[in-house]
Amino acid sequence: MNYLPKSIRKLVDYFDRLPGIGPKHATRLALYLVNHKEFATEYVKDINTALQEAQFCSQCQVISDGPMCHLCQESNRDQQSICVVAHAQDIEQIEHTGKYNGTYHVLHGSINPVEGITPDHLTIKQLLKRIKNNEIKEVILALDATSTGEATSIYLKKILLEVPISVTRLARGIPVGSSIEYTDEVTLSSALENRK
Amino acid sequence: MNYLPKSIRKLVDYFDRLPGIGPKHATRLALYLVNHKEFATEYVKDINTALQEAQFCSQCQVISDGPMCHLCQESNRDQQSICVVAHAQDIEQIEHTGKYNGTYHVLHGSINPVEGITPDHLTIKQLLKRIKNNEIKEVILALDATSTGEATSIYLKKILLEVPISVTRLARGIPVGSSIEYTDEVTLSSALENRK
Repeated sequence: MNYLPKSIRKLVDYFDRLPGIGPKHATRLALYLVNHKEFATEYVKDINTALQEAQFCSQCQVISDGPMCHLCQESNRDQQSICVVAHAQDIEQIEHTGKYNGTYHVLHGSINPVEGITPDHLTIKQLLKRIKNNEIKEVILALDATSTGEATSIYLKKILLEVPISVTRLARGIPVGSSIEYTDEVTLSSALENRK
Repeated sequence: MNYLPKSIRKLVDYFDRLPGIGPKHATRLALYLVNHKEFATEYVKDINTALQEAQFCSQCQVISDGPMCHLCQESNRDQQSICVVAHAQDIEQIEHTGKYNGTYHVLHGSINPVEGITPDHLTIKQLLKRIKNNEIKEVILALDATSTGEATSIYLKKILLEVPISVTRLARGIPVGSSIEYTDEVTLSSALENRK
């Protein structure tokens, strides 16, 4: 990349720091922006608008355009149930199933000591406050089945032991469409243990 | 994505239009920016700087920070040889081989009638002018082995027939490390035809 001008190399560096983008893709994106000036100008304008307008829902902490998000305002939702997710985009996945009609709580990440993300960086305080101040009956931990998601689940479960509510987490098992031959041991063990 | 504020949905839409980014990744990136305001502000600043500073090398058309790029200014390069590439990032790949010491010419794309990219959208005029005004002996077409790359190669070869210079293109064959069993028919045919 030494043949690229300094300003572009810096832009490549920024793209490289975005999640899920590698160095080659970053170069491609930076050059795309510089080659499409009109698009890039609109894009920059839109990032600024989004940054100015975005705020967090005072209840579920999701990004919202007002002090309370649309989902929290829906009157037909079960306000006594909270589904805890790591990221806002997880809400969409759960909504797509059509199997849940409660409210959500977005942690904005998972506990990750390697990256320095401790419980204080997440919206756990807000969750506890919400549980204390409202009549919550159920908390569903819908966190990733990864090491960081698992760590967050264990942490939350421990903390919530003190509160008299039902705390569950998503079942582990074989995903639909996959064969036993290619299922890893841990998943298969969970699927066996939780057979019904 | 209906639960996201309008400004974020618009930003997701912009990310989705960037090359190699799907709708899910676009949502993730837009939310990342809004969750990392400091990073996003710096990022926007840097895009603006890059847009302002970037210009195209008057000779090879690569993005440069001056009227002529570093590569074109290198005195030990063979100025009589031009390697034609579709994108600036292809230069790096070729430079890495250490097998080429001539100059480059960046087309900024490939002919693609489906997307409305005709020869006029590329820097072909500048290439022809360059060949006319300089003592060029060799043009190497280093374009992708895809349908659009191939179409561009054929088009350029036809046009360059009128000029008394050597026009070659990169060899087609089995890439190092791959097995014959998994090589497609067209590649294998080329490898057979060009055996040496």
